[in-house]
Amino acid sequence: MKIYADNAATTRMSRRAIEAMIPYMEEVYGNPSSLYSIGQEAKDALESARETVAGCLGCSPGEIIFTSGGSEADNQALFSAASAGERKGKKHIISTAFEHHAVLHALKRLEKEGFEITLLDVSGSGVVSPKQVEEAIRPDTCLVTIMYANNEIGTIQPIAEIGRICREKGVTFHTDAVQAVGHVNINVKDENIDMLSLSAHKFHGPKGVGALYCRKGIPLLNLIEGGAQEGGKRGGTENVPGIMGLAAAMQEACDKIDESAAHITPLRDRLIEGLERIPHSILNGDCKKRLPGNVNFCFEAIEGESLLLLLDDKGISASSGSACTSGSLHASHVLLALGRAVEIAHGSLRLSIAEDITQEQVDYMIKAVDEVVAYLRSISPVWRDLQEGKREFILK
Amino acid sequence: MKIYADNAATTRMSRRAIEAMIPYMEEVYGNPSSLYSIGQEAKDALESARETVAGCLGCSPGEIIFTSGGSEADNQALFSAASAGERKGKKHIISTAFEHHAVLHALKRLEKEGFEITLLDVSGSGVVSPKQVEEAIRPDTCLVTIMYANNEIGTIQPIAEIGRICREKGVTFHTDAVQAVGHVNINVKDENIDMLSLSAHKFHGPKGVGALYCRKGIPLLNLIEGGAQEGGKRGGTENVPGIMGLAAAMQEACDKIDESAAHITPLRDRLIEGLERIPHSILNGDCKKRLPGNVNFCFEAIEGESLLLLLDDKGISASSGSACTSGSLHASHVLLALGRAVEIAHGSLRLSIAEDITQEQVDYMIKAVDEVVAYLRSISPVWRDLQEGKREFILK
Repeated sequence: MKIYADNAATTRMSRRAIEAMIPYMEEVYGNPSSLYSIGQEAKDALESARETVAGCLGCSPGEIIFTSGGSEADNQALFSAASAGERKGKKHIISTAFEHHAVLHALKRLEKEGFEITLLDVSGSGVVSPKQVEEAIRPDTCLVTIMYANNEIGTIQPIAEIGRICREKGVTFHTDAVQAVGHVNINVKDENIDMLSLSAHKFHGPKGVGALYCRKGIPLLNLIEGGAQEGGKRGGTENVPGIMGLAAAMQEACDKIDESAAHITPLRDRLIEGLERIPHSILNGDCKKRLPGNVNFCFEAIEGESLLLLLDDKGISASSGSACTSGSLHASHVLLALGRAVEIAHGSLRLSIAEDITQEQVDYMIKAVDEVVAYLRSISPVWRDLQEGKREFILK
Repeated sequence: MKIYADNAATTRMSRRAIEAMIPYMEEVYGNPSSLYSIGQEAKDALESARETVAGCLGCSPGEIIFTSGGSEADNQALFSAASAGERKGKKHIISTAFEHHAVLHALKRLEKEGFEITLLDVSGSGVVSPKQVEEAIRPDTCLVTIMYANNEIGTIQPIAEIGRICREKGVTFHTDAVQAVGHVNINVKDENIDMLSLSAHKFHGPKGVGALYCRKGIPLLNLIEGGAQEGGKRGGTENVPGIMGLAAAMQEACDKIDESAAHITPLRDRLIEGLERIPHSILNGDCKKRLPGNVNFCFEAIEGESLLLLLDDKGISASSGSACTSGSLHASHVLLALGRAVEIAHGSLRLSIAEDITQEQVDYMIKAVDEVVAYLRSISPVWRDLQEGKREFILK
């Protein structure tokens, strides 16, 4: 059996999204900045894609700029808000320790430039409380940036409440919603979001394209200087086919968002229950405030890489945290932020399932993980020490 | 007759490039940073694409990073070289007044940050002389950035000589080769180029993807902070389908580069000769040191926008300078840099032809432009004044 269970890393493109792209590659391939017919046709398509995206998020088309992906959108949002803050003498930013690296590394650079960064504690279930945010806001806070849903553990943050607090306090609020868009219902106006990043390939759209929602009146800096594209806020010929693919995939995902969640959520819970039966295992992240498709576990005495390779042998594509670091030997910063011990954080498994998941596949995954964990423990000196009482279990 | 004559703005994707992309959208869609099979397959493809690009440019694969396009590559190159210069106390940059806006606007920002920018004069034929560059280099010069071929007038610069001078003087040399790659033979080692930007959609590849060549040892800053992709120099999930399309199109273009030039160049010259027969017209840019497919003219008493709209009616897609500004009312900064008067610079026409051009199409374009220019002049009060001697001709 072949199961792709790494949809949080990237997804298979939908047929509809691919078919939305092709005509703009070989028929309406004109440059949208051009005056002649096939340029103007491309421009019309681009603007209709912008309307689609705005419609899905509940904002105006003029508040959407297309980018090359979520990381670019995050960077542009953060550097813009920081620069606007600096002009007012406000150099304090609030975030969390379990943000995506696109946010954390941008914050690291801002810290070097003299900004003060407060990373809120998310230990325990991986959910930030609005009260934490409220208490952290200072007169010199220029930006709160908190992800909508975590990429590793899938926890969903109380974004609407955080948005309300930020709006009341007059602080710009950005959310990296790369994992959430297309998977949970979002309305940027109702939730008082000022800036939001999204990425097409997380909801069956193409790689290499994303968008930044930026509320009217919030100033934006260019990350990429150049031509007058995207209202002068992002230089470079517009990736029309990619943008058409993004819009098609986003509409498709948003149209069936409740239906997909209704299908995936019980199967996710079945998977969680199955994996909880493995001794000395623990679910990472809140069991309720969580993306429909996210399952993330730690197993005592298990090394993540071996787990993934053996699961791959059984036809299961899974991940040990985020794709960006799954090749690295560092323990996940997200799991460390939750308060997991380093040796436990090394043994994590993320299974992120999509709409096409079946109960049969879930049961196959439970059995496969159970077998692989048992096998790896049978050859593990750490496990032997634990059994012989020479070291203590961390996970009871 | 339908003629797409705006290949400098963007090109129709080749079938080979499209077919190179599709499998990576719905079959090998894995994240290249993942450990499992379809992730590793995507990674292998990505690295083979990097080898292809490196092979076409004469560098090592490790010297190529993929970007979202030419503008991003230009920005990353310039900000990186400026930052490296600043660390050594060198804050002088040399460029030209007719660079692409991705370069000029990035330089404008650097100027605000305290860098001194020398823009070399390119008046006349639109070619920079190596001597000009040599004379402009100062002890505090950290970067020379000069485009390989101009996007509006197609002039090709003496890059190898400029490269040699920069290497001798120990100054980093970047070239925006967006218009040149796939159209003229380039070897970054032979030409002593330290950094080079390219864009796939200028040679029948996909929009939204490009690359930056950066010679080993030249430090790079991230423009997009994030994951460890592209050697840690460019965050964001790699656009694998786009990169595969770029590599396929680049290989295809480079394989037949001489053959294409041999076909296009005489047809370009036929087009130039035909348009020169229109009274009070002038070719912009050098007639020899010029891209095979570029033709750019100014016509006295003609307004560019009307010219383009009437040519579109005759089935010809053309441009009045760069696509980025063709919708704007500003006169082309390139033509102004050449020394053209503002009223003349407003009446420019760029026809950029590709490999599929035929002599019949060229003759049709000559006839169409001739007719449209004659018609526009017939209704022009400026032309009447010129005829009646109430104002003087600028173009003899």
